[in-house]
Amino acid sequence: MDPRIREHAETVVEHSTDVQPGDNVVISAPSVAEDLAVALHEAVGDRGATPVYLAKDSRASRAYLKAADDDDIETPTHLQALYEESDVLLRVRAETNATEQGDVDPETQATATAARRPVQEVALSKRWCLTQFPSRAGAQLAGMSTDGYRNFVWDAINKDWGAVREHQQQMVELLDPANEVRIVSGDTTDVRMSVDGMHTINDYGENNLPGGEVFTAPVVDSVEGEVLFDKPLYHQGREITGAHLVFEDGEVVDHAADQNEDLLTEVLNTDAGASRLGELGIGMNRDIDRFSYNMLFDEKMGDTVHMAVGRAYDDTVGENREANQSAVHVDMIVDMSEDSYIEVDGGIVQRDGTFRFEEGFEE
Amino acid sequence: MDPRIREHAETVVEHSTDVQPGDNVVISAPSVAEDLAVALHEAVGDRGATPVYLAKDSRASRAYLKAADDDDIETPTHLQALYEESDVLLRVRAETNATEQGDVDPETQATATAARRPVQEVALSKRWCLTQFPSRAGAQLAGMSTDGYRNFVWDAINKDWGAVREHQQQMVELLDPANEVRIVSGDTTDVRMSVDGMHTINDYGENNLPGGEVFTAPVVDSVEGEVLFDKPLYHQGREITGAHLVFEDGEVVDHAADQNEDLLTEVLNTDAGASRLGELGIGMNRDIDRFSYNMLFDEKMGDTVHMAVGRAYDDTVGENREANQSAVHVDMIVDMSEDSYIEVDGGIVQRDGTFRFEEGFEE
Repeated sequence: MDPRIREHAETVVEHSTDVQPGDNVVISAPSVAEDLAVALHEAVGDRGATPVYLAKDSRASRAYLKAADDDDIETPTHLQALYEESDVLLRVRAETNATEQGDVDPETQATATAARRPVQEVALSKRWCLTQFPSRAGAQLAGMSTDGYRNFVWDAINKDWGAVREHQQQMVELLDPANEVRIVSGDTTDVRMSVDGMHTINDYGENNLPGGEVFTAPVVDSVEGEVLFDKPLYHQGREITGAHLVFEDGEVVDHAADQNEDLLTEVLNTDAGASRLGELGIGMNRDIDRFSYNMLFDEKMGDTVHMAVGRAYDDTVGENREANQSAVHVDMIVDMSEDSYIEVDGGIVQRDGTFRFEEGFEE
Repeated sequence: MDPRIREHAETVVEHSTDVQPGDNVVISAPSVAEDLAVALHEAVGDRGATPVYLAKDSRASRAYLKAADDDDIETPTHLQALYEESDVLLRVRAETNATEQGDVDPETQATATAARRPVQEVALSKRWCLTQFPSRAGAQLAGMSTDGYRNFVWDAINKDWGAVREHQQQMVELLDPANEVRIVSGDTTDVRMSVDGMHTINDYGENNLPGGEVFTAPVVDSVEGEVLFDKPLYHQGREITGAHLVFEDGEVVDHAADQNEDLLTEVLNTDAGASRLGELGIGMNRDIDRFSYNMLFDEKMGDTVHMAVGRAYDDTVGENREANQSAVHVDMIVDMSEDSYIEVDGGIVQRDGTFRFEEGFEE
C-alpha cells in the first residue's frame, strides 16, 4: 500500500476527528477507495474504536432513484439511527464516473436530498470528516494523469496542519474583527460587503480534508458591486463558465455566463436566498495549485477567493445577524493571483495572492 | 447487465423477503457483487422501499481485527441501531479472496463474533435473506470456470420456488411426524436418532437463496452410531476431509479425519454442545449437482444429507424439547447418491438419492 494512504488515514482519525477508544465510527467510501477504507479500518482499530463500513455507490444510488416514485422517497430512518448511535462519521469521496447520476431527474434528486435532510442534521451534529481518495476517474475529471493526480491529492492532504492553522490564523485575525471587505480583480471584479458581527472560521483540515481556507458570511443586504468568476463551476454535472453577477443591496440584480447561463439562472431562482451570498471564503492551500473540477479542492486553492450564493454556515453567522437561508449553496471562484487585491476596512491585506503577513507583500 | 442478475434481485425482494412500500431495507454486499447490489437497489426502489448500502469487505475487516486489542472489541451498537430500525436485511456473499482472514488470530475472530452476537440477534428477528453472487474468486474456490460457476449459481437460485416448496413438502410430511431416523451409506455410515417432538422446516429460498433443503433437530441424547462425512468441509479457511464421528447417547465419543484432524478436535471441544448434533438436514436442490466449498450451496446439494455439530435452530426445536446450545454450528455432509438409504420409523424414504415420492424409487 502506498505509504501516503496510511498517512492520510492517520491524519483523518488523529488530526481531523480525534477518534477515541470506544467511539462508534462510520466509514463511508466507494469501493474504488478500498485502500483508504482498509487503512481507516486499521487506524480505527488501533485507537480502540468500532467501525461500521457504509458503501457509497453512485451507480446503486442512481438505480434506486430511477426506480423509485418521488412519492415513495422517504427519510432513511435506519441510516439516521446508525448516525445517532455514532460518534464519528468519516466520508471518503472518490469518482468512478463523475457523471453517473447525470440522467437522474433533477426533481427526484431534490426530493431525495430533502428526504435526507434530517439524516444530514444528525450527521453534522457529530465529529465528521469529508475527504478524497484519488481514483482514475477523479484524475480524468481533473485532466491529469493518475499518478500526477495522486501526488496532487496527497500533497494537499498530507501536510502539517498545525502549521497551516497558525498561518491561516493571521488572516482570521484580520478578517474576524473587520467591518468592510472589498475584492478587486482586474476590471471585471469589484465587490464590497460587510462582515460586521460575523465569525471567521479557520479551516485547517478538520471537517474537510484537505482544508486550507478562511471563511465567513457576508451581512445579507450589504453586498454591492460586480464579480466575474473566472474559474469554471460544475453543477449537477454541467459546467458553468464565465459567471458574472451584479449585486445591489445584497441581491443579484443582473447575471450572465459564457456557458450554461440557463443553469446559473435556475440556481439563482431556486428561492429568495439563492440570489444572495451565504459565504465569502479565501483559499489558502498553495499545494492546491490547479483547478480539478472538485469543489472540496478548488475552493481551497491558493490565490483564490470564493463566494457562495445560498445558505450560510451557521457557525459563521453572528448572534444578532441574519443567516442567509436557501436550499442551495453554490460556490464560485475568482482567481486573485494577478492584478487583484483584497481590502479590509480600507487597508490592502492581500495583493496578487500574497498576504500582508507574508514575505514579498507590497501594499 | 446479465438478465439473470435482475431475476436474482427480483427473487430476493419478492419471493424471499416480500419487500413492501415503506420498508427500511439494508443491502449488504462486497464490491465484487456490485451488479447484484445495483439490481437490488433498483428492485427495492421499484417496490417503494428505502435502501441503505453496507459494504462487506473482508480486507477491511481483517485490517480492523489485526489492529484492535481483543479488550477493545465491542458490540457495534451503531450497527445494531441500524438493524433495529430496519424491516428487511439482504446479505450478499461473494468472494474476492476466500482466505482473506486466514491470518487473523482465531481468538480475536471469536471475540469479534461474540461481540456481534446482540447484533445478530436483532438481525435474525427481521425478514432476511442470505444469498450469493458468483465472483471469479468464488469460481476458483469451487474449481470452476467463471462462466461455468455463474451458470451453476444462477441455475441453483433462479428457479420456481413454489414448485420447490411443494416438492419438498412431501419430505416434510414424512419427517415431521416421525420418531426415529436412520441414515445408512456404504459400510461407513450407520446412524440413528430420534426427531420425536421436533419441527421439520421446508427451506424453499426464503432466508437462504438458494434454498433447497428440509431440516430438523435431533433429540439431543438420542444419536447413536457412526458417520463418515465423505464430502470435505472448510472451516476457518482450512479443509477437513474424511471426518468420522462415533456417537453414543448423543455425544461424539470418538472422532478422526484424514486431513486437519486437530481442527476437528478443536471444533468438538469448543463447549459441551459442540460434540452433539444440532441439525439433521436433507439436501434436495438437484441444480446443485457438485460440491463448491460453499456451505450455502453444499448443504442443499441433491442426494446428500448433512448433520451439524453445535447449536440447534430454535424453530426446529419442539416446545418441550431441549435445544442443543453451542457457540458453533458446523455442517458436515454425507453423499447419499450410491449404496445409501434414509429410513424413517423403519420404512425407507430415500434410496440412492431417490425419494419415496419420486419416480424410480425402489424400496
